[in-house]
Amino acid sequence: MSTLSERLTPLRVAVIGAGYWGPNLARNFAASPEWELVAICDRDRARAELLARKTGGPAVAESVSELLDSCELDAVAIATPARTHHEIAMAAIAAGKHVLVEKPLAHSTGAGQDMVEAARAAGRILMADHTYCYTPAVLKIRDLIAAGKLGDILYVDSVRINLGLVQPDVDVFWDLAPHDLSILDFILPGGINPPSVLAEGADPLGSGKSCLGYLTIPLPGGALAHIHVNWLSPTKIRRMVIGGSRMTLVWDDLNPQQRLSLFDRGVDLERQEMMLDDAVERKGAAISYRLGDTWSPALSEVEPLGLMVGQYASSIRSGVPSPTDGEAALRVLSVLEATSRSLTVGGPVAPLVVVDAQGVS
Amino acid sequence: MSTLSERLTPLRVAVIGAGYWGPNLARNFAASPEWELVAICDRDRARAELLARKTGGPAVAESVSELLDSCELDAVAIATPARTHHEIAMAAIAAGKHVLVEKPLAHSTGAGQDMVEAARAAGRILMADHTYCYTPAVLKIRDLIAAGKLGDILYVDSVRINLGLVQPDVDVFWDLAPHDLSILDFILPGGINPPSVLAEGADPLGSGKSCLGYLTIPLPGGALAHIHVNWLSPTKIRRMVIGGSRMTLVWDDLNPQQRLSLFDRGVDLERQEMMLDDAVERKGAAISYRLGDTWSPALSEVEPLGLMVGQYASSIRSGVPSPTDGEAALRVLSVLEATSRSLTVGGPVAPLVVVDAQGVS
Amino acid sequence: MSTLSERLTPLRVAVIGAGYWGPNLARNFAASPEWELVAICDRDRARAELLARKTGGPAVAESVSELLDSCELDAVAIATPARTHHEIAMAAIAAGKHVLVEKPLAHSTGAGQDMVEAARAAGRILMADHTYCYTPAVLKIRDLIAAGKLGDILYVDSVRINLGLVQPDVDVFWDLAPHDLSILDFILPGGINPPSVLAEGADPLGSGKSCLGYLTIPLPGGALAHIHVNWLSPTKIRRMVIGGSRMTLVWDDLNPQQRLSLFDRGVDLERQEMMLDDAVERKGAAISYRLGDTWSPALSEVEPLGLMVGQYASSIRSGVPSPTDGEAALRVLSVLEATSRSLTVGGPVAPLVVVDAQGVS
Amino acid sequence: MSTLSERLTPLRVAVIGAGYWGPNLARNFAASPEWELVAICDRDRARAELLARKTGGPAVAESVSELLDSCELDAVAIATPARTHHEIAMAAIAAGKHVLVEKPLAHSTGAGQDMVEAARAAGRILMADHTYCYTPAVLKIRDLIAAGKLGDILYVDSVRINLGLVQPDVDVFWDLAPHDLSILDFILPGGINPPSVLAEGADPLGSGKSCLGYLTIPLPGGALAHIHVNWLSPTKIRRMVIGGSRMTLVWDDLNPQQRLSLFDRGVDLERQEMMLDDAVERKGAAISYRLGDTWSPALSEVEPLGLMVGQYASSIRSGVPSPTDGEAALRVLSVLEATSRSLTVGGPVAPLVVVDAQGVS
Repeated sequence: MSTLSERLTPLRVAVIGAGYWGPNLARNFAASPEWELVAICDRDRARAELLARKTGGPAVAESVSELLDSCELDAVAIATPARTHHEIAMAAIAAGKHVLVEKPLAHSTGAGQDMVEAARAAGRILMADHTYCYTPAVLKIRDLIAAGKLGDILYVDSVRINLGLVQPDVDVFWDLAPHDLSILDFILPGGINPPSVLAEGADPLGSGKSCLGYLTIPLPGGALAHIHVNWLSPTKIRRMVIGGSRMTLVWDDLNPQQRLSLFDRGVDLERQEMMLDDAVERKGAAISYRLGDTWSPALSEVEPLGLMVGQYASSIRSGVPSPTDGEAALRVLSVLEATSRSLTVGGPVAPLVVVDAQGVS
Repeated sequence: MSTLSERLTPLRVAVIGAGYWGPNLARNFAASPEWELVAICDRDRARAELLARKTGGPAVAESVSELLDSCELDAVAIATPARTHHEIAMAAIAAGKHVLVEKPLAHSTGAGQDMVEAARAAGRILMADHTYCYTPAVLKIRDLIAAGKLGDILYVDSVRINLGLVQPDVDVFWDLAPHDLSILDFILPGGINPPSVLAEGADPLGSGKSCLGYLTIPLPGGALAHIHVNWLSPTKIRRMVIGGSRMTLVWDDLNPQQRLSLFDRGVDLERQEMMLDDAVERKGAAISYRLGDTWSPALSEVEPLGLMVGQYASSIRSGVPSPTDGEAALRVLSVLEATSRSLTVGGPVAPLVVVDAQGVS
Repeated sequence: MSTLSERLTPLRVAVIGAGYWGPNLARNFAASPEWELVAICDRDRARAELLARKTGGPAVAESVSELLDSCELDAVAIATPARTHHEIAMAAIAAGKHVLVEKPLAHSTGAGQDMVEAARAAGRILMADHTYCYTPAVLKIRDLIAAGKLGDILYVDSVRINLGLVQPDVDVFWDLAPHDLSILDFILPGGINPPSVLAEGADPLGSGKSCLGYLTIPLPGGALAHIHVNWLSPTKIRRMVIGGSRMTLVWDDLNPQQRLSLFDRGVDLERQEMMLDDAVERKGAAISYRLGDTWSPALSEVEPLGLMVGQYASSIRSGVPSPTDGEAALRVLSVLEATSRSLTVGGPVAPLVVVDAQGVS
Repeated sequence: MSTLSERLTPLRVAVIGAGYWGPNLARNFAASPEWELVAICDRDRARAELLARKTGGPAVAESVSELLDSCELDAVAIATPARTHHEIAMAAIAAGKHVLVEKPLAHSTGAGQDMVEAARAAGRILMADHTYCYTPAVLKIRDLIAAGKLGDILYVDSVRINLGLVQPDVDVFWDLAPHDLSILDFILPGGINPPSVLAEGADPLGSGKSCLGYLTIPLPGGALAHIHVNWLSPTKIRRMVIGGSRMTLVWDDLNPQQRLSLFDRGVDLERQEMMLDDAVERKGAAISYRLGDTWSPALSEVEPLGLMVGQYASSIRSGVPSPTDGEAALRVLSVLEATSRSLTVGGPVAPLVVVDAQGVS
């Protein structure tokens, strides 16, 4: 049977880039029954060989062209610096390979759009490694929202702060906000697609880039998403609050004993006639509280990267894009780029690319 | 000696407004050796009489004019709705009384400016009841900053959120942010005096006003203050982080066991030559961490309102304005008003009045 | 109708003792529609008069005999030092009054037993003011256990520690453990009735009495209750864990945002054949985890003392003893007395009195 | 120079036991410049070979006799089940090797004593792998106590609870309490050497052994150490409080942001004449609080096992026993054994062996 034989034949993949993140990808491809890790590619041959030794001895290549020429591959996984993503991905797509790419998708929205269109034209899967989206907490949040447990989304407030290394090449938004943006895109029905974004940053140390900042993104229905990123905080916080009309969810990623909490508490708004204290009768808004139970769902303990490489295989076999496909990554990239422009102009800025359910427009 | 006799003669005060906050003021005036509470004034005579019975039996008046005509007073304390502050305060100043007024100072910056100028012209004390500024935590923060313990201020991030009543007459900024603004004005050397403010609000329930919002205020030297206020949060947070170049302070007002924490942790920035991973030598920014001890100072346990009425007496006797004088309250009011305009225009807005050390300009 | 007229006629009560706790009782009797507070009794007439003025002006008496002679009463509430409880209660019962008494019931188990028997013989209600039992958290815990939500009780671990005043007349067990014991008696089906108790105390400051200690009480079915009391702890903890075969409950009384948590987590024990690592086949115990959701029920916000005086009235009218009746108080007292003897003998000690569902035996 | 040449010649070690803990030891020996890992020994040859491959390819042996015959060794590290420790250690000592052994030292105090005496007679180092003692937190606690920062130790309260696997061969005391006991022995001047211990356990699931329990150990000067171990707790707690006459230390091992807190708070006891409320003048104890600052020292980030193998090497080279030498391990073992007897007799029990600064007596 074809299904069975497909099961029996693992997909052949190469990992390109053996630096910081590549080893994690290689380890997970090597451990997956869906995949056969056939090569590691890195300009630094010694680094590639070291990684190959730890992951069952795949082949080693020093360049992408050498890799594509010498190995029979179904797919590649790109874990190189962002500015090289476009060139490598385009070459791989041209060679008929499926492509998984580290965040951010590319160094510019234009380049990302190029990759999305090339993959679509070639009928290849283009997927982003938005790892957070494959954590048990985020998967549960997505399910809860999709099932209507939260009701309408009223606001999202995310805080991602700690004492961080000031990166040489990116500011705090490009370093940390991709996590929040990819999560938002994953959990919100329809993804993120804001008419404008507004960012404010500060560089009080004079490092030449924002070391802390705030990013605001309007959501449908008058809701607001707000992201606080900060490299200068002595305390580490990873906390996202999603206020809903029915329940409010708090995700505290640093509290392993109660990562998710759902509060059946809120404000109920009812229009009614009321007397104000100046004795003038008029229409007012009366609000009452709802103080219900709190509930913390149990979460499974799975390896997010293992789930992610499984999703990559499954998308390739089925042709169905993953929720973190190239278009999702392009939405994230587009907002990031708008963030930088907002910092420059000092006000709200519209993302360059609008990607909706029908694709890039 | 005059000092002794002044000590022996308490100042005579009336509390105007016997609603929500007036009773707290009356109780503290009645308990203070510096003060003699001689009258309660309220349109609702029964309410005034009830309060008078609980505070040692001062006289009762139904209107400000009745009060000023019938009682020999040194000072008044105004705890009526904000829109009545200007009229009452102007009458009291015209009658030669010192004036303490609830926050906000007035319903508009213009009215507040009027009051400040009238008090100055009449040589009377005008002071705002910014109660938070008289709490042990805030007093300690002010001392620590003044003593240079934090170094340069790099950022301030304040979160003041809870499940709150949607107020009939004010939005969440006017309800909650005066606390943060008055605290900032109190602890920062020179007070708050920003060239512009930027506010974003959301009204996802359709209540007709912002129920949650964010307010950003540039501080001198590239620093940024950010305030998050929210009526729709199921969890209550009262947390202010003040990042400094030497130490960072975290004030968690809901943790009575460790309200203030000072972190001797931070980021040290040093310019140096460094090699980036693409092997191109260039100037970069190298950052190293500093991971020192954490210290939580013990706080005294004093009643803030008791301290505040003592400060009012002391300012009257000495002629030296308190740190929460009319000009401080005007700076807070001016930023609040700019907040509302920023919400309307959707971008940064400059406060109408600039009050610096030399006064209103 | 008698029910209606009873409703319309409040019960007449006097509070005996106007020191630390009496004012709280008097205030709640005065505020209750079920009660008419007719007198305050205290050896210190000025203290009694002061309290009377604050509670609507009841009569004042200087001695219990004066009180019982001069006032028409249905009931008394005794808030005097423990060593005087027996004499006052016996006089009140002899005069046909119902009796509410502060914890501990009496200065000795024998005296307490005397009071229980006298009240029973006279057909009067004898009730203890175990205030904690009327808090929303404890009422909810009792309901949850009674409904079988926790399953069988496996253990109870209670920690009640803080920086406390070393009391002149009692040790840390008599000061703090009555709270834990009365709560345990209230929530456990059948109350506490242990065959023996074991206490260990320490007096490292040389104060002449235990300043910290541990008390262990066997529960039915091999379960164990353990109580940690400590006056020397710099951090304050009020935390009771009730491990059950179905769910485990954690009550953290100092966390107002999540006072009760129910964990659907535990250990499932199943007998099975298993291979141990020394390759000898034998019967072993295999345990597997159950990792389910956590749930935090919303709690009402009622005044415990208001509920308690309501229960007192209701017991008097119906003749049905309250769950904190004289026998409950006697069980607590009996365990406390055994605690002291255990400290003396350095080992387990059986309580002197066993009070079960059929009464004292 | 001999020092230099010693530095240049790593000590030769074999790890015996390749199961749960052996790999950690092997990895740390392999990584240390002080050591050369020359062999892995395990009855299961495949397991030994797997571990050897991961640690640089040392030799493999299937039995201790084969190991001692075939390899030139300075030292061994034993990570086999406790009941085999004695036989292996005695063989190694007889062969002139230094011995590191996993906790507990042996299956019985007698066997442990045998090992201590054999090592002393042979002039070999016998050391226990009490890993916790080499963590930055415990090292800092030891230093603080030694420097007198805490003053006299008044009490120690340790809680080590979580949802744990019910072990097939040991109860909760033997599983968890060795950690607390080895830490206490390490940080308390003179180690632990109690005249008696008192343990209480419960087996409410009917597993055949204690699944939760409490252990009390008198300390010099009227102080008390108390240890709570529990396999059935849905929440995980690792918390030790050390109350001192000058400062109190709280070690919360699950709070990486503030693992250690030192509270300059306490109770000051002063004898004085005082009037009690019954108007009888007598000697009483007056206590006042001291409410000072809290301080949380920064901790280094070192690998405890790396430090431990370094200490092993240093002890061998210098001949100076480590603080976790055989005698320390014997004190821990002796208390553990007394714990089991206390459970059986239902009361306090004296440890069989007393090991003081002069050695075993």
